[in-house]
Amino acid sequence: MGMLTRIDHIGIACFDLDRTVEFYRSTYGFEVFHTEVNEEQGVREAMLKINETSDGGASYLQLLEPVREDSTVAKWLAKNGEGVHHIAFGTADVDTDAADIKDKGVRVLYDEPRRGSMGSRITFLHPKDCHGVLTELVTSAPVESEGH
Amino acid sequence: MGMLTRIDHIGIACFDLDRTVEFYRSTYGFEVFHTEVNEEQGVREAMLKINETSDGGASYLQLLEPVREDSTVAKWLAKNGEGVHHIAFGTADVDTDAADIKDKGVRVLYDEPRRGSMGSRITFLHPKDCHGVLTELVTSAPVESEGH
Repeated sequence: MGMLTRIDHIGIACFDLDRTVEFYRSTYGFEVFHTEVNEEQGVREAMLKINETSDGGASYLQLLEPVREDSTVAKWLAKNGEGVHHIAFGTADVDTDAADIKDKGVRVLYDEPRRGSMGSRITFLHPKDCHGVLTELVTSAPVESEGH
Repeated sequence: MGMLTRIDHIGIACFDLDRTVEFYRSTYGFEVFHTEVNEEQGVREAMLKINETSDGGASYLQLLEPVREDSTVAKWLAKNGEGVHHIAFGTADVDTDAADIKDKGVRVLYDEPRRGSMGSRITFLHPKDCHGVLTELVTSAPVESEGH
């Protein structure tokens, strides 16, 4: 408990990643820090770095566009339209924190953490156990958390 | 443009503030930093400080419970259930940034910034102009941004 040390990112689902990236750039001046396709999650994503954080990490907006119809994000968009899809807290040890949180009766969606943005390891908590908020836990890849 | 320097908070609407505060405390170890009632917004709120940010500010979760049936948050909860209600970016100058963003064709919901959490000055951008995300701009009260 208590190992979550930052807001790592806010995950925002959109229909058209390029248009949404352009909105955030032209409206606020936020630039793309990283892009990738996560085949397992079925998304194409852009990370916009907003600020650095007191634990040595950073906070991002994660813009997500589905790349296939059966992805979780595609289904969520069809139901909800564009908007905030999830929030993510950063931790140095997602394995231990996920196990601790599971012991408290919150459903953890993966048996083992999976690959997230920029080589991170992630898991999700069931939104129905989190007052409606789909909540992700993230441990950054070592190269990032050490600031190289 | 480009004066938004942090994720200031994530606003989360809930039916029962005390129960939701207890969920965040017992599950993650997040403690209440500040509570207040904002009569104008029609909410009772708890701010949970998650991390400090590289611009000298901090990032919070803002848990919101409506205190009257006709408040925006009460109507939102009736339609959507509990979940992420808005996101907020911190700026040193909400007046200038709101004017600049309005000039770009994004609807700004207030003619003048209003009172937000902890004496801050806030405004909101129309979610339909922001790819579905109700977006707040926040300038912290001077006493906080100077770190006293």
